[in-house]
Amino acid sequence: MMKTYKIIVAYDGTCYHGFAKQNNAITIQETLETAIEKIIRQPIQIIGAGRTDTGVHAKRQCCIFEADTCISTKKLLFAINSKLPKDIVIKELEEAEPSFHPRFAAKRKTYRYQILNSKISDPFLFPYVYLFGFTLDIEAMKEASRYMIGEHDFKCFCSAGSTVQSTVRIIYDIHIKKKNDLIIVDICGNGFLYNMVRIIIGTLLQVGQGRLKPQEIQQIIKSKDRTLAGPTAPPQGLIMLEINYKD
Amino acid sequence: MMKTYKIIVAYDGTCYHGFAKQNNAITIQETLETAIEKIIRQPIQIIGAGRTDTGVHAKRQCCIFEADTCISTKKLLFAINSKLPKDIVIKELEEAEPSFHPRFAAKRKTYRYQILNSKISDPFLFPYVYLFGFTLDIEAMKEASRYMIGEHDFKCFCSAGSTVQSTVRIIYDIHIKKKNDLIIVDICGNGFLYNMVRIIIGTLLQVGQGRLKPQEIQQIIKSKDRTLAGPTAPPQGLIMLEINYKD
Repeated sequence: MMKTYKIIVAYDGTCYHGFAKQNNAITIQETLETAIEKIIRQPIQIIGAGRTDTGVHAKRQCCIFEADTCISTKKLLFAINSKLPKDIVIKELEEAEPSFHPRFAAKRKTYRYQILNSKISDPFLFPYVYLFGFTLDIEAMKEASRYMIGEHDFKCFCSAGSTVQSTVRIIYDIHIKKKNDLIIVDICGNGFLYNMVRIIIGTLLQVGQGRLKPQEIQQIIKSKDRTLAGPTAPPQGLIMLEINYKD
Repeated sequence: MMKTYKIIVAYDGTCYHGFAKQNNAITIQETLETAIEKIIRQPIQIIGAGRTDTGVHAKRQCCIFEADTCISTKKLLFAINSKLPKDIVIKELEEAEPSFHPRFAAKRKTYRYQILNSKISDPFLFPYVYLFGFTLDIEAMKEASRYMIGEHDFKCFCSAGSTVQSTVRIIYDIHIKKKNDLIIVDICGNGFLYNMVRIIIGTLLQVGQGRLKPQEIQQIIKSKDRTLAGPTAPPQGLIMLEINYKD
């Protein structure tokens, strides 16, 4: 009997060309599918809660696949992990309702962006941070972030090439904390446009350097003009943290 | 004029055959020397505060080298880092007294050992932890660690092949903390025998599993018998944290 399995996956995206399957490059989706197929010996298809770009990481990406197997979920978890490379790990595996869709059912998504605010790199952090050497005014960045909270048309924070119908999204919270040289920005929303988190970070960094005033964020959002926002911050600082399915 | 430079180096040891130079393998020392020589254009020799084995990491290894250069210390730091691979970073560089010797002058050394106490790995932590799936009694491990504090002949915790004259060392402190699945053990002493930290960890893990009683540590130390202590824990969990030169 066909069952739907829900998996929570953590991955270091450094060596992958993003999540979504491609014909000519190694992706997270394909690597997961290959490992699962080795165990359950039937073709399966992974559906994720969201795509991540080349070099972007995930702590708790949520995916489903359908399969007809009598292997217990506990055994399945360990068996599949044994076939995965060390930079992709299934943290949890359970049966889900056949109607469950990880993208459509998502209520909130939380992304983290990490900035190493130093002129000197770190051998343990470099694949997971944006090394940014200029002095930053964290309080100004916090003030700017507050103008982004709420339901807005975030077209100004959306990369060209996106085909979504509506660019209206809700940002529930932006939390900025600094621990030594590491600045961690957690952004929680009901969904994100293409490159939205990385453009928000690029814009906050402009504010942190004094190139934009915090209150200018209001006009940038109103303008719906991508060119008025900051540059797209690099991918390696971005981590898909959590997908929530409850209100 | 010949000057002595003191550097604080952080490295991810995963891809290196330890710190000390070898004829037939890539080491931290050789990689540092090659990068420095590219900048100051004269042969130099790195002396470190201690050796680390293959796969062992360092947050603040202290080294010196002598060179005759008029490049400022600030420029030297950035120039050398630009020639180093991303998994080795010089965090600090300054002039030191010519008499300063990073090994002989060291008063205290602190090593960290990280255990991921889980049956499931982590894509971000696996190169820096010992994945240990069995349930551990942390309180018993803490109790056992207290028998190791102080000045003792630690021959039981020294691997064969060591040529040191005395196996007496002082352990000032062992601090064990647990944060979710991650167990972090910090050990501070006046010096460590070959593989001493990794054998201490292997022994504490025996206690944590109930295979040894905490109070048995006393007899194991008294016996001076390596075979009574636990196995040598794997290298990747070990990090040289700090070398102190003040009492």
